[in-house]
Amino acid sequence: MKFCRIVHEGKEIYCIAEENAVRLLNGTPLGEYRLTDTFFPIKDIRFLSPVNPSKVVAVGVNYAAHAEEMKHHDIPDTPILFLKPPTSVIAHEEAIVYPIQSKRVDYEAELAIVIKKRCKNVSKEAAMEYVLGFTCLNDVTARDLQAIDKQWTRAKGFDTFCPIGPWIDTDFDWRDAKIQLLLNGEVKQSSTTARMIHKCDALVSFISEVMTLEPGDVIATGTPSGIGPMDIGDTVEVSIEGLSILRNTVR
Amino acid sequence: MKFCRIVHEGKEIYCIAEENAVRLLNGTPLGEYRLTDTFFPIKDIRFLSPVNPSKVVAVGVNYAAHAEEMKHHDIPDTPILFLKPPTSVIAHEEAIVYPIQSKRVDYEAELAIVIKKRCKNVSKEAAMEYVLGFTCLNDVTARDLQAIDKQWTRAKGFDTFCPIGPWIDTDFDWRDAKIQLLLNGEVKQSSTTARMIHKCDALVSFISEVMTLEPGDVIATGTPSGIGPMDIGDTVEVSIEGLSILRNTVR
Repeated sequence: MKFCRIVHEGKEIYCIAEENAVRLLNGTPLGEYRLTDTFFPIKDIRFLSPVNPSKVVAVGVNYAAHAEEMKHHDIPDTPILFLKPPTSVIAHEEAIVYPIQSKRVDYEAELAIVIKKRCKNVSKEAAMEYVLGFTCLNDVTARDLQAIDKQWTRAKGFDTFCPIGPWIDTDFDWRDAKIQLLLNGEVKQSSTTARMIHKCDALVSFISEVMTLEPGDVIATGTPSGIGPMDIGDTVEVSIEGLSILRNTVR
Repeated sequence: MKFCRIVHEGKEIYCIAEENAVRLLNGTPLGEYRLTDTFFPIKDIRFLSPVNPSKVVAVGVNYAAHAEEMKHHDIPDTPILFLKPPTSVIAHEEAIVYPIQSKRVDYEAELAIVIKKRCKNVSKEAAMEYVLGFTCLNDVTARDLQAIDKQWTRAKGFDTFCPIGPWIDTDFDWRDAKIQLLLNGEVKQSSTTARMIHKCDALVSFISEVMTLEPGDVIATGTPSGIGPMDIGDTVEVSIEGLSILRNTVR
């Protein structure tokens, strides 16, 4: 199933994405729902971010090659966590706004996990029972401010700095999927989720031992090597094998 | 006005705190409300955190003496931001839970700003128009994990690590108020908000230039020097002149 959220007659509603159309749901994938017989052509749709997370928990330096390019020589045994504010979340095809405070704004292609059920202290073995599905995420980062602040919140927390979407896929195999970032059609990052240092199930477990995860919460699982800057006017795409492409432009 | 939130007949409701009683509100201080003639004796009340923030934006090393004790010799010109997750928020008199992952959990007394109206790119001069009021906050920190991770999110993000309350005072003068932390009745931190490096109005403005602030969002304005550890069974109080004491125990 591919859950998306759209605006219909002024209301935010969930749908299932099918071949060339989306099918209206009654309810939400985070609770109860049933399928309806109402369809909308996919070409007419303005997508919303597939969830409104109460928190976006992100993982730093979770691919060894990226750790190397960022000169993190002392990778700790445990995942490095940071948070992106809910106000940074935007949808597929929404614009990333280049802030005046920065002179270098980077893309970071990431696989995102969407939580289905509240969980706390869940084991690695049970972790996937609490996951609704997966989607693409761009962990947009003001690289110059990241260096100044040391703490990453400002650099990664600007409005529009967290594109998520286009939809949540419940049937995705997270173990070894190709992950790429394309800038104006050119491949800039290319790796596989198999190269994550801490895998998806371990991340859900680890984070849930710190903070309760709520339905709709998002975990950004880290970016591979190949990070680099974007300019105003650029089109940036996160492409993960088995998921639909997340595309945004920089304004 | 002193806005508090309590549970009444299974519902979360706002009240105004008065001398020995709280007075029921119809509505919320973040929107429309009117006073009712229903009162509850203050001694019978279990307080909730006065808001359910969509985000808690905190400011690091915002008192020079604390910067010194933390060996931050290169204080940047701009505030250092980090986020505490909404799941870390607890109320006055709720228990701080000591996590098994840490061997050193510290108190940090802080003045908290509560946002009233959505704002983005607000000037320092206009900032206070967007503020509902002030309350006490304890920025509980697993000091050992903070040192390991470098990023502060895990160390400061555990469930129960953000006591806020007991209520939001709209008539508080934030410019020069004594701020203290008491551990089992003994003064451990003592300073004044006049010693903040970045003042409340500047913080609201600065943060709003990065991320949209939503009604009910909380800004933790940093802690003075004198930080130190707590043990299970300790009682910890944040006392700010002009506000009511925030008291929690460690479990």
